Amino acid sequence: MNPESSFSNDNREQLEARLQQLKSSYEQILSQGLALDLTRGKPSTAQLTLCDSMDGILNGNYLTENGTDCRNYGGGLGIPEARKLAADYLGCDPKQTLVGGNSSLQLMYQCVLYSHLFGDADAEAWSREAGSDKIKFLCPAPGYDRHFSVCEALGIEMIPVAMTDRGPDMDQVEALVQADPLIKGIWCVPRYSNPSGVVYADSTVQRISKLGNIAGNNFRIIWDNAYAVHHLVDEPPELANILELSRQHGTLDNVYAIGSTSKITFAGAGMAFLASSESNISTLASHLSYLTIGPDKINQLRHVKFLKDNNTIKNHMDQHKAILRPKFDLVQQHLDKAFAGKSLNGEAMGRWTIPKGGYFVLFDTQPGLAQQVISLTGAAGVKLTPAGATWPYGNDPNDSNIRLAPSFPELHEIDAAMKVFTLCVEMVTLEQALQSG
Amino acid sequence: MNPESSFSNDNREQLEARLQQLKSSYEQILSQGLALDLTRGKPSTAQLTLCDSMDGILNGNYLTENGTDCRNYGGGLGIPEARKLAADYLGCDPKQTLVGGNSSLQLMYQCVLYSHLFGDADAEAWSREAGSDKIKFLCPAPGYDRHFSVCEALGIEMIPVAMTDRGPDMDQVEALVQADPLIKGIWCVPRYSNPSGVVYADSTVQRISKLGNIAGNNFRIIWDNAYAVHHLVDEPPELANILELSRQHGTLDNVYAIGSTSKITFAGAGMAFLASSESNISTLASHLSYLTIGPDKINQLRHVKFLKDNNTIKNHMDQHKAILRPKFDLVQQHLDKAFAGKSLNGEAMGRWTIPKGGYFVLFDTQPGLAQQVISLTGAAGVKLTPAGATWPYGNDPNDSNIRLAPSFPELHEIDAAMKVFTLCVEMVTLEQALQSG
Repeated sequence: MNPESSFSNDNREQLEARLQQLKSSYEQILSQGLALDLTRGKPSTAQLTLCDSMDGILNGNYLTENGTDCRNYGGGLGIPEARKLAADYLGCDPKQTLVGGNSSLQLMYQCVLYSHLFGDADAEAWSREAGSDKIKFLCPAPGYDRHFSVCEALGIEMIPVAMTDRGPDMDQVEALVQADPLIKGIWCVPRYSNPSGVVYADSTVQRISKLGNIAGNNFRIIWDNAYAVHHLVDEPPELANILELSRQHGTLDNVYAIGSTSKITFAGAGMAFLASSESNISTLASHLSYLTIGPDKINQLRHVKFLKDNNTIKNHMDQHKAILRPKFDLVQQHLDKAFAGKSLNGEAMGRWTIPKGGYFVLFDTQPGLAQQVISLTGAAGVKLTPAGATWPYGNDPNDSNIRLAPSFPELHEIDAAMKVFTLCVEMVTLEQALQSG
Repeated sequence: MNPESSFSNDNREQLEARLQQLKSSYEQILSQGLALDLTRGKPSTAQLTLCDSMDGILNGNYLTENGTDCRNYGGGLGIPEARKLAADYLGCDPKQTLVGGNSSLQLMYQCVLYSHLFGDADAEAWSREAGSDKIKFLCPAPGYDRHFSVCEALGIEMIPVAMTDRGPDMDQVEALVQADPLIKGIWCVPRYSNPSGVVYADSTVQRISKLGNIAGNNFRIIWDNAYAVHHLVDEPPELANILELSRQHGTLDNVYAIGSTSKITFAGAGMAFLASSESNISTLASHLSYLTIGPDKINQLRHVKFLKDNNTIKNHMDQHKAILRPKFDLVQQHLDKAFAGKSLNGEAMGRWTIPKGGYFVLFDTQPGLAQQVISLTGAAGVKLTPAGATWPYGNDPNDSNIRLAPSFPELHEIDAAMKVFTLCVEMVTLEQALQSG
């Protein structure tokens, strides 16, 4: 950033004039009654329509390859062909997988709940080990709000960990787990982190895969590979295979790797799956057997018939990319136009990510302004994820992170929303500069 | 039963000759290598096929009446038309319902888990109230093994309660809850109890609906109406509406009424739902929001399009009845032929139910023989539900209950299985009579 850019050299009068101009534009927008939404990473209608042929795809054939009738009860691990698909997707053996219902969040919640209450085969239950103390989870932040909610729901204390452009700050992570045996897990979204878009570097994955050797056998890495194939570029960055690395380091029990088709097929009616050691899968299946006689195997069969294999999934995701890419490009254009090279008080007016995949752009205001920006855009009819939502306890220490989710709205809506957003950022930043100046 | 029947007047030699004859028949059966299964209440292939048109029924229309796109995220309470269907089915207002995924057991497990760990709006969490003590559930027995497993999984102590032909022994139930405040719930399958087929009498439902007034506001009646429309006769017995009665008595918070389409459409891919007070539904939805962004709405929409309303459900269930009735009749014919009017040592050789609906026939051997009978039929290739499975902790105090589930096998398989079963019962009963005489 160049502190000598045009804005920083404006005199106070010019800045005040610009602020008045922005305020007047904002007043005009208020009168338009906009209703736009950039809050959640939801697929758009065009993306969903790519899979419309799934209803009816079975053509009356409800049997798996091994003759199981998907219409009837049973099969807590998922049907064999779905486990094969999940294994190829996550990079492991089908025996290491469990395929569930429509929600990967539910699988993660259950893994955490069961580790807390019951423990795994050789792993003491966290609640027993902690006694009257609380156990703790490491939360690379900013991160995924629904991960943090699981901790809140189950009374697990959250410790924010800094995110770098190579993933969580591993020096910090290792020091923390070494110092405190009540730290029992870490949330990870390793490729296209929510919301920063960071892809964990090989060395980071290596160090994460060895955490179990420091933290002990009931430590759990929740490896939420939610955007594994959700690329926005043609040459996507590689991600090291944590299941393979953990197997090599004898720490496979420490890892739950999770995937789902929620943003491949239908967000509300996809197929979620999980991989770990065979022993963990067996323990999990046994816990799950108390609450269900099995997942929806018919929907699993639909998914296998539609998605077939990694190559078919890749081609399918290219169609998603073709829909999503222009939306992300449009966001970048607005941000570039409004803020590229512009600084105020010697500081950039905004910084933002250029993700190579995933569902989010992370925008950083100058410190202390995110809440105000989000509140102003909201009042103007453009909903954004609440300030702080991407931090444990909703507490963004700098009040600067704003998560933009352009997947669901149409291009013209993104265009309108980004005009409001950039206007509000500039207005709030100017106002603060003038007050403090 | 007539104690003067032919068998009881046989002399020892005749009985021994008969036993030899049975043993020789049993040896022959052993050599046949049968593989038959009367263990679980699973629908048969013919029943499942009734719903084959469900895959493809949406015909590309994934929208609800109010314009919600079922393909996308959201809608934790279920889609409005599914809630309407559930409300009509259970007899309440749609606002009192929550429609979930494919497993009613999961809804029940979650209700029990959340009441245990977190409590409801005005209801103290059981675990907090109990401190270091265990909370307890009343378990009318024989009952449904998977209800009992939920208690075992969550460390809830089970107290068996006698079943009468009018439902649970309410004198016993009321006395127990009055005496022990740590009794926090009761499992009920009110119409066609699993496995006895009993339909709760109006007076029983009345008294159950008032239990909250004795037991306090965090007591929960798990009213698993699993066989609400699963009749085997043309004039099915009525069941009083517990939701309506509880509303009248101000005890609606004490009731979770549950239903599912697992034995209406697809056992593994049906739609489960629950009704209670609006306040409980709201609390439950809020707990569920931590583990899922919503149920599979597409499958809910399929169900609404297929099942439409109570009248369409009734007609559909008539088709199920046409398939199931001959199977249940065949079981009765075998039992009649083998045991009607026959006694030994002044006691009937067997007693059994003639259910008007549901999925089971309950057979009682003379005391102490069930385990032996099940083991012998198993060795001959006819699987039965393990002895004691229908009792808390697997402990049938009389070792006499045997649950027969004739829904899944074909008629010729039931015929073969019942021959083996009746033979084993007679053989074991004779043997015991000869040993003790």
